[in-house]
Amino acid sequence: MTGRAHAAPFTTDDYRARMERAARSAADAGLAGLLVAPGPDLVWLTGYAPTAATERLTLLVLTAGHDPVLVVPTLEAPDAEKAAGAPALTLRDWTDGKDPYAVTAALLGGSGRFGISDNAWAMHLLGLQRALPGTSYASLTEALPMLRAVKDAAELELLAAAGAAADAAFEEIRKVRFAGRREREVGADLADLLRRSGHSQVDFTIVASGPNGANPHHEVGDRVIEDGDMVVLDFGGLKDGYGSDTSRTVHVGEPTGEERRVHDLVREAQEAGFRAVRPGVACQEVDRAARAVIADAGYGEYFIHRTGHGIGVTTHEPPYMIEGEEQPLVPGMCFSVEPGIYLPGRFGVRIEDIVTVTEGGGRRFNDTTREMVIVE
Amino acid sequence: MTGRAHAAPFTTDDYRARMERAARSAADAGLAGLLVAPGPDLVWLTGYAPTAATERLTLLVLTAGHDPVLVVPTLEAPDAEKAAGAPALTLRDWTDGKDPYAVTAALLGGSGRFGISDNAWAMHLLGLQRALPGTSYASLTEALPMLRAVKDAAELELLAAAGAAADAAFEEIRKVRFAGRREREVGADLADLLRRSGHSQVDFTIVASGPNGANPHHEVGDRVIEDGDMVVLDFGGLKDGYGSDTSRTVHVGEPTGEERRVHDLVREAQEAGFRAVRPGVACQEVDRAARAVIADAGYGEYFIHRTGHGIGVTTHEPPYMIEGEEQPLVPGMCFSVEPGIYLPGRFGVRIEDIVTVTEGGGRRFNDTTREMVIVE
Repeated sequence: MTGRAHAAPFTTDDYRARMERAARSAADAGLAGLLVAPGPDLVWLTGYAPTAATERLTLLVLTAGHDPVLVVPTLEAPDAEKAAGAPALTLRDWTDGKDPYAVTAALLGGSGRFGISDNAWAMHLLGLQRALPGTSYASLTEALPMLRAVKDAAELELLAAAGAAADAAFEEIRKVRFAGRREREVGADLADLLRRSGHSQVDFTIVASGPNGANPHHEVGDRVIEDGDMVVLDFGGLKDGYGSDTSRTVHVGEPTGEERRVHDLVREAQEAGFRAVRPGVACQEVDRAARAVIADAGYGEYFIHRTGHGIGVTTHEPPYMIEGEEQPLVPGMCFSVEPGIYLPGRFGVRIEDIVTVTEGGGRRFNDTTREMVIVE
Repeated sequence: MTGRAHAAPFTTDDYRARMERAARSAADAGLAGLLVAPGPDLVWLTGYAPTAATERLTLLVLTAGHDPVLVVPTLEAPDAEKAAGAPALTLRDWTDGKDPYAVTAALLGGSGRFGISDNAWAMHLLGLQRALPGTSYASLTEALPMLRAVKDAAELELLAAAGAAADAAFEEIRKVRFAGRREREVGADLADLLRRSGHSQVDFTIVASGPNGANPHHEVGDRVIEDGDMVVLDFGGLKDGYGSDTSRTVHVGEPTGEERRVHDLVREAQEAGFRAVRPGVACQEVDRAARAVIADAGYGEYFIHRTGHGIGVTTHEPPYMIEGEEQPLVPGMCFSVEPGIYLPGRFGVRIEDIVTVTEGGGRRFNDTTREMVIVE
């Protein structure tokens, strides 16, 4: 499989520090250790991104008081050795036909509770549970939800740059022709603009026109955009290993009064969510602040998703801005604020910025106009 | 996120039949049911491919005597409804903030052993284990390794077409210039040729020149290919929802005697593996047949991976041609036969065809020359 580019400018020492911090956090949370599968956690901790997660076990084992060990298939060991974090860990390779769970079990001891990556394969968890019946497991997000949530200065800079690049793409896409073209074509334009603005990976380019806008997960389709359509644009990806994600809702030609009112309402809700951001406030308060504006105007039943999600080495991670999430905001956390209203069969509106928490409140990484943009 | 194209021409009835067959196989294997996460199993059973596997639970529940149920996040329900298999199942959607494991638990009953997709997220398995402490789980590949392994006539036709398309790409790539160009550039050529031959998704384009060829998982790098290099080419992806995967090792200019001998040896090993294919033979016999040729010539320690893997809606799945795999071959199974020799720091050779089992023996889906091709 084709690997992702992870060009984050971090050193072996950065990765060593992250692994040490993670092992300490695990111990503080009463865990015997962390088991990290290929994916964003592994990228963040080691800089290593195998070309694919497969049935062949790759697992980083972090236990307090021991050096980090990366269990890796023998034929992937040469790639793993090239990772920037590799000098800060020991490689333990295993060959096709051998039992990788026995190799891992020897590193874990026979008991204790371990955190394991959310996206570790179930077959690998089952293999460990069978090899070590005395152990128990918690998902990493449940055990240490905020492991990657607080970004350091270098990470904030990379996220700000990714946001600026996405904004540059919006400034170009608003100039292109919408009417008479398929959503798919505008989506291809957006992907191209994201790449030209420095994204190495495009994760999504939603172009949801007219009634398609009422489905918050519609991506692009063959619908031909018409004069009079609302069009939700929601796009992002990775630039230098860090994510962008922004939404604006544009209108082809003059909007109706109702379209303006709904758009204004979402803009107010987004502003309210943004203004709720400050250290110590629970994540759910961001959701509540945005939702109250929409509910008070009678549209509550049409705001059918949470208000936001974290972003970092992925475009979608904790913390979540959702009712029930009591995690207090901490300076350095980064997440989307993206309320929406979805009127089935008619149209939808969503406005989204990435926001980071500072001592003084929220700071946006997206700053294109939140007024309704009229396109052709 | 951008979805994958899954253009396989199957009907609701096809998916209904697959789900019924899977539920019966599960019951025959003593399982209370199957839990199928987003990925190839779900595509094969329902035609549904969510845009991404995430922390939001999507799970197909197949239990004997009940209609299939797809547990799905509310905001993804409209997409799920569009899948060709959707009319053959019931959608059970859940909203952000609700507990999807409670929804699923109500479908499973409080006890029994369930098969769960290998690639289901560990966090989802842990959620189910917690909601239903009386249940136990086995990975689908362990419980029903051959669920998707035997292809029907329509699937064989699609795999043959994907193989022919990959072969067409090889016939073009052998004409391009290698010497003086970076591996990455030749890899981009290969990806382009795969797309032009009808692939909707390119999974890998390995161009491993000179010493890079000795790392079987090297993909492409910035190494400039030189006159005198061996170059391992290994490429494939999905065409109309089914996979291709073939390897040929070419040489820039005239090879040395040793290079010829090693290439001839791998060719003989590949032929021996292919000739071992017939119904009733254990998978490991295919590995043994290929390996014996290489071991007998004294190169055994340089053949450092298994001989093959299955292929279907993915480019990498059971059955595996590996020592210890006693599964007998059945007509309709499709897999790679791909021995190799890897001389550290020097060069590598790998030759790979996709082979299907017929009553009369093996049939290849790749048929470009297995003689060493000299390139410029």
